[in-house]
Amino acid sequence: MSYDNNNVFARILRGELPCQKLYEDDATFAFLDIMPQSDGHSLVLPKEPAAVLADLSPAALQATMLTTQKLARAVQQATGAPGLRIAQFNGAVAGQTVPHVHFHIIPCYPQQELRAHARESADPAALAAMREKVVAALAALG
Amino acid sequence: MSYDNNNVFARILRGELPCQKLYEDDATFAFLDIMPQSDGHSLVLPKEPAAVLADLSPAALQATMLTTQKLARAVQQATGAPGLRIAQFNGAVAGQTVPHVHFHIIPCYPQQELRAHARESADPAALAAMREKVVAALAALG
Repeated sequence: MSYDNNNVFARILRGELPCQKLYEDDATFAFLDIMPQSDGHSLVLPKEPAAVLADLSPAALQATMLTTQKLARAVQQATGAPGLRIAQFNGAVAGQTVPHVHFHIIPCYPQQELRAHARESADPAALAAMREKVVAALAALG
Repeated sequence: MSYDNNNVFARILRGELPCQKLYEDDATFAFLDIMPQSDGHSLVLPKEPAAVLADLSPAALQATMLTTQKLARAVQQATGAPGLRIAQFNGAVAGQTVPHVHFHIIPCYPQQELRAHARESADPAALAAMREKVVAALAALG
């Protein structure tokens, strides 16, 4: 799959679009999904430009998964969710909406169905409050 | 989450239960889901005993993702599916049915909804035929 340098996540990575940033290191970047399927829904991206998992270098894949694990722990602590789904979609038919590899971290709560994917924007104030909680949990987990 | 040594996947890893094995190395193991959500639905496991993603060591996580990427390429080639979902569930509330970390590789096909998770067993002959195709694709991809 060819890579489009102007996809939304490429623009977020370049700082051209805002996001509720949770974490960044040399190889990865994480922020809150603005159309969350549940409270705390977060996204982890490699900085390497790759549209799908198959195109990602081993080093970028490793870095992305270490960040995903780190964020998963922090999101779970921040939200108190008893469960988490990790999901990564390849191709439009699989539900991929942005052609830059990204891992979803989706907290799951009792008696609460997940909302539809990429459908409804969250309240900006609620996202900002969630960001504070996840960033604090990340710092606490070290 | 504490680890139960007698969960179904631990028993498959010890060779106590059969499976349609696709791949094995020192750190990982892959086989076809016997209740596939779509044709070619595969599972990748670390051999390290861990119930959820948060409990996995960095080395086991890295090995698991490299195998997941390798299998994703092979499954996509073997099935011709235009899309793939990668999914990993943590906790019963998130849909985890076996308490040993596993990544789902789920091919997505046009105009075809995924079947329900862990609901209906596939025809053993169809699974065996799919296994042959994926193993051949793995060998071809090198």
